[in-house]
Amino acid sequence: MRRVALVLEYEGTSYAGWQRQPRAPTIQAAVEDALARLVQAPCRVVGSGRTDAGVHALGQVAHADLDTGLSVRQIRDGLNALLPADVAVRAVCDVAPDFHARRDARGRVYRYLVLTRPQPSALLRRYAHHVPDPLNPSAMASAAAALLGRHDFAAFRVSGTPTATTVCHVRALRITSRGPLLVVTVAADRFLRQMVRRMVGSLLLVGRGRLPADAIEPILASRDPQRAGPAAPAHGLYLVRVVYPPDRLRVVPEDPVL
Amino acid sequence: MRRVALVLEYEGTSYAGWQRQPRAPTIQAAVEDALARLVQAPCRVVGSGRTDAGVHALGQVAHADLDTGLSVRQIRDGLNALLPADVAVRAVCDVAPDFHARRDARGRVYRYLVLTRPQPSALLRRYAHHVPDPLNPSAMASAAAALLGRHDFAAFRVSGTPTATTVCHVRALRITSRGPLLVVTVAADRFLRQMVRRMVGSLLLVGRGRLPADAIEPILASRDPQRAGPAAPAHGLYLVRVVYPPDRLRVVPEDPVL
Repeated sequence: MRRVALVLEYEGTSYAGWQRQPRAPTIQAAVEDALARLVQAPCRVVGSGRTDAGVHALGQVAHADLDTGLSVRQIRDGLNALLPADVAVRAVCDVAPDFHARRDARGRVYRYLVLTRPQPSALLRRYAHHVPDPLNPSAMASAAAALLGRHDFAAFRVSGTPTATTVCHVRALRITSRGPLLVVTVAADRFLRQMVRRMVGSLLLVGRGRLPADAIEPILASRDPQRAGPAAPAHGLYLVRVVYPPDRLRVVPEDPVL
Repeated sequence: MRRVALVLEYEGTSYAGWQRQPRAPTIQAAVEDALARLVQAPCRVVGSGRTDAGVHALGQVAHADLDTGLSVRQIRDGLNALLPADVAVRAVCDVAPDFHARRDARGRVYRYLVLTRPQPSALLRRYAHHVPDPLNPSAMASAAAALLGRHDFAAFRVSGTPTATTVCHVRALRITSRGPLLVVTVAADRFLRQMVRRMVGSLLLVGRGRLPADAIEPILASRDPQRAGPAAPAHGLYLVRVVYPPDRLRVVPEDPVL
């Protein structure tokens, strides 16, 4: 037996999220099924965390224990030949037998794409949230500043989800433009469920002038999930990268494709 | 009656190309059906040219005669509400009654995307041709130089297609990199059927070292469609822009989404 880490890219459109479910297609099930066919034995993979239905990933990380003499490259290419086309293995690495994709993770980076033009896009319809109204990016940037740092993000969680702690450290929150796309990048040690989508939903209310930029700070302070904006749709969200201590897993960040 | 020009973006994946066919979904039929529903009368649209099955467009242009008092913006938004999500209207412009999308066109710009990394991409699987082998971009650039200018491109047409003339003026041919993507942009006054895909197919043979860079010039000179490389797959190709004299149609180039 050896433990390997898998770096995965996927399009979430056709999946009920990461986590295996009895009666719905999931990314975890797709990866476990491909691994089982590759090594001819049942396989379980442990992801760094769940992604919700419809959310994409450029660098989800998972680990698995395999009884195989295949090289990491043969595992990568073998899995890519067996996986459905909307799931791809970007890298396979040998890791310590006690490496754990979720428990060893020190941070995660998410990206959210907003298409800001009056017309919808045929090519990006599955990859970016279309907001036809004009947005005010400087109001959004000023509102975003209130979310930087270590805070209790209870206001931005899914209402009613029990969690041990709702304190997260948002290390970076950048809003940039790329052609007609507004790109929101958020890095934190951990994220609550739907936290990025509710942060983006709130920032979009500010961008559209429906909420003043200085409203974000009191919403955060309230810890009240009723007060933040609605979750922006899943199809604009990407899990870009999972960060580990370099001695546990050194994932070379690849050039993003989107 | 008034004549309008439509600037169209589409994902070609689910279509048998631009031109209406009796028993297959086409872009032209989708646009004509949406227009007919909008103005409550049968409509015919004339495209700047055909795109083949699976080819995408960021800026295809078509004209149509409409009996409607709707503003160009209302036509745009109305069509976008009626069209399937993989076809979008980027702009609608009033044009002279004798404007003709095909006959007035003075040039076209195509782009071809090649994903150059060993692993496939889940997110770009419909939008870029995946070449896992390493490519030599400088050999490709030197080969591409032979295709610049006014030449008889008979060698790069579909074998056996009759055409009035096979002389085209390639005004620009650029190969650039964007992350893991190789982007081939070709501008010409006109293109033969599958010409860009056979040019890219030949350049990829050079990039993979299967053809020397100086082999392109004699292939071109031979005018023999048997000698050029195979057509690169349709799903990497985009009709980016159609160029008109500014007094006929001034299309403001928008930021590309892909």
